[in-house]
Amino acid sequence: MTSIRRLREVPRFDREVDVVVMGLGLAGASAALEAKAAGADVLVVERSGAGGGASALSGGLIYMGGGTPVQKAAGFEDSEENMFKFLMAVSSPGADEEKIRVFCADSIEHFHWFEKQGVPFKRSFYDEPGLESRTDDCLVYTSGEDCAPWNTIATPAPRGHKAQVVQKGGGLLMKIMLEAVGRESIPVLTDTRGEALVVADDGVVCGLVVKHAGAELALRARRGVVLAAGGFIMNEAMCALHAPVLNRVTDRNGTPGDDGTGIRLGQSAGGTAIRMHLGEVALPYTIPNPLSKGVYLNTRGQRFINEDTYHGHVGIAGLYKEAGELFLLLDDATFRRGLVGLQPSWVAETFEELEAEAGFPPGSLVETMTLYNRHAAQGRDPVFGKRPERIVPLVNPPYALVDCRVSQGAIWSGFTIGGLRTSVDGEVLDYAGDPVPGLFAAGRTAAIFSGHGYAGSGASLADASYFGRRAGRAIARAGGR
Amino acid sequence: MTSIRRLREVPRFDREVDVVVMGLGLAGASAALEAKAAGADVLVVERSGAGGGASALSGGLIYMGGGTPVQKAAGFEDSEENMFKFLMAVSSPGADEEKIRVFCADSIEHFHWFEKQGVPFKRSFYDEPGLESRTDDCLVYTSGEDCAPWNTIATPAPRGHKAQVVQKGGGLLMKIMLEAVGRESIPVLTDTRGEALVVADDGVVCGLVVKHAGAELALRARRGVVLAAGGFIMNEAMCALHAPVLNRVTDRNGTPGDDGTGIRLGQSAGGTAIRMHLGEVALPYTIPNPLSKGVYLNTRGQRFINEDTYHGHVGIAGLYKEAGELFLLLDDATFRRGLVGLQPSWVAETFEELEAEAGFPPGSLVETMTLYNRHAAQGRDPVFGKRPERIVPLVNPPYALVDCRVSQGAIWSGFTIGGLRTSVDGEVLDYAGDPVPGLFAAGRTAAIFSGHGYAGSGASLADASYFGRRAGRAIARAGGR
Repeated sequence: MTSIRRLREVPRFDREVDVVVMGLGLAGASAALEAKAAGADVLVVERSGAGGGASALSGGLIYMGGGTPVQKAAGFEDSEENMFKFLMAVSSPGADEEKIRVFCADSIEHFHWFEKQGVPFKRSFYDEPGLESRTDDCLVYTSGEDCAPWNTIATPAPRGHKAQVVQKGGGLLMKIMLEAVGRESIPVLTDTRGEALVVADDGVVCGLVVKHAGAELALRARRGVVLAAGGFIMNEAMCALHAPVLNRVTDRNGTPGDDGTGIRLGQSAGGTAIRMHLGEVALPYTIPNPLSKGVYLNTRGQRFINEDTYHGHVGIAGLYKEAGELFLLLDDATFRRGLVGLQPSWVAETFEELEAEAGFPPGSLVETMTLYNRHAAQGRDPVFGKRPERIVPLVNPPYALVDCRVSQGAIWSGFTIGGLRTSVDGEVLDYAGDPVPGLFAAGRTAAIFSGHGYAGSGASLADASYFGRRAGRAIARAGGR
Repeated sequence: MTSIRRLREVPRFDREVDVVVMGLGLAGASAALEAKAAGADVLVVERSGAGGGASALSGGLIYMGGGTPVQKAAGFEDSEENMFKFLMAVSSPGADEEKIRVFCADSIEHFHWFEKQGVPFKRSFYDEPGLESRTDDCLVYTSGEDCAPWNTIATPAPRGHKAQVVQKGGGLLMKIMLEAVGRESIPVLTDTRGEALVVADDGVVCGLVVKHAGAELALRARRGVVLAAGGFIMNEAMCALHAPVLNRVTDRNGTPGDDGTGIRLGQSAGGTAIRMHLGEVALPYTIPNPLSKGVYLNTRGQRFINEDTYHGHVGIAGLYKEAGELFLLLDDATFRRGLVGLQPSWVAETFEELEAEAGFPPGSLVETMTLYNRHAAQGRDPVFGKRPERIVPLVNPPYALVDCRVSQGAIWSGFTIGGLRTSVDGEVLDYAGDPVPGLFAAGRTAAIFSGHGYAGSGASLADASYFGRRAGRAIARAGGR
């Protein structure tokens, strides 16, 4: 189903355009809009009944910086160089310097492009790091920029931008982007699945065979095909082979289309998939600041991260290093103020009791909290560098322990961020780093820009839109066939 | 250099055989011997001046079990099922059950095959887990089988088998294996580099273009090609793309041939590489038992593993989770008895002083050791499950801290274990899991059998030889062209 079709084996084409875009999430919409703007005749095919994809289900954060109008209005200083410095650090090891460079250089322009499509961004900051603001405010910290160790590497600046809407922003974002696609009169074939790339004998990708309304259609793409069909979090077998820890997450972020079809189509034509073990992972809640005054513990009763960092960092470290087996400890003061619908599994008057009840190794939780509280009384955390304003000694019983273990049913969410290796212009690259002619990819069908690190929430939509746009512009001027 | 050559573009072949094996380490030798034994006309090409490869430089441990003659003679009970249970657990997440099943089922036969080739195994056990015994004894624990948590999952049995020679066994092993290749009159072209696979229009691999003495030779392989040309630890750019943490290791285990050529040749013909981020990693020393009475600390002054486990587990967890930034803490008693040429970087009369001198977060080392010593006084380690016989309270000053940080020049060694995806018979598989006809791979050119887990020292040579043999048998009966 995902093997190639030879050009000479295609008797006739049902439709002929310059560019076929497969998938109408944010990556596909961005690629289509830019290809069209560059003069190309574009056709979009979308597997489901309407566009939107996983982008529409998402929090809608877009990672942009360097001094966007929202950053400025909210009083945050940022620069291209500062953003670059942060992203290089957070993306290590294996940061993709070339992509990060252009991503930062063009970030303000990218913001204006979104506004030109009609996406409204309120000039305001929301002072809770999270998946998205719960108000219609725009700007949030989404990658721990103001936390250790990053706050010593680059000047902290929030860069998560959400369209102006209460709660999640993905729905509004995609509604507007789909309207933009409509305004540009870009044809969209919905209920249409990509089945095979059409490849000429010399390896040039020049079409896509799709299934539409039960029938097979052959689409000729004179300049090439953009694969923007999502990742593979919905494909358990692919996760088992490439990213088995992601099979532990209880809430797979995606649509049924995120089954790896896009990646496999790209591989069938010679594209190489990279960093396939990586994922974005989040704890089940948008952590409010008071909650970060608590302490995360692993099963050995140890802390493993500064709790005030962005909870996506907690999620990644928690799943990849601690197998998703975490607890959150709070005292009476921090518990009352902070929790959002979370119930403690254990409550006790002393750490000793709590430790015994929850089954930690004897003494482990007590020792951890003795050290933590001793430092907290001085307003500091020399072990993990939590910020003073998030540090209070946990000394008000009862103490509560929230069970965040994925094995015990805690809801962890995640999606894949590995995928086809692409150039800065979205060209799909083969094992040697050479472009597969006529083939482009964007969004989670491609490996995200941030190397083996984790660039935080908003990075995926920013990558999808920014590199999707570049792919659209590049394919419009591609030689093709 | 690593792109394919079309069959129709090859004007003539300089030599024609059934099977071409590229690389004469253990995988290549095993494949060649079995293909020859099955009646095939085999030619081996080897890039360097003589066979041996990274196998000859290795400790020479081969992971075999299920009740080998050595295990029996040394008084260890083991069974296929017990070995399977252990390997499935240690290989998680993502254990490759199909490969592990056949690997265990045939392990005793595999032992006898080595003896038939002339490899001597002394019927003896060496009671220090390590890279290899320092005597000519055979059997060692190489994967923490007798340590937590594995000792509760399967009955502990040592499975690392070394040929009978003092110190490292790889040299003798490969000397004997190369003699076996010679006895079978299998021709070997040395100083010969594989440059391009020859592929027919229907995708069948049917030859290899090599460079020999400055000239290009086209080798026809009627039944196919076995890629057994090592991994990619010597290729920094490939490591940066796929396994950036491995660029931190200071001692790359391999020969110059481990530059990824084999993997890239396989990819050029449609093979898929998987688990490319993974490596085997070891600390700079063969840890003697007394040393494991010490305590490993990360930069936050925390323990992170049971110190009595096989040091490869320490290496993997240490590099992948702790970025290679470790310390080993010993007291006067454990230090004097245990250290093998290691010098402490800090010595102090109290933990407080040691902690301050080495720059740990204040109180962190002291708290860790308070808890550790309290439990050790009771002969137990409820936090990580270290075995009672390796537990002593560290209470005899002075205390010594050995700096094992890779960033400070400590010698960590490692090599890649990701590579081409292969079937149980060594067929190279494409992205969809279908064989690339005529193409086989073994050794570190292929992804190791153990999924995303880490099966310990000896696993790589065992994988190379066992699945190399299977590849040799399979290609001898392959349809070919």
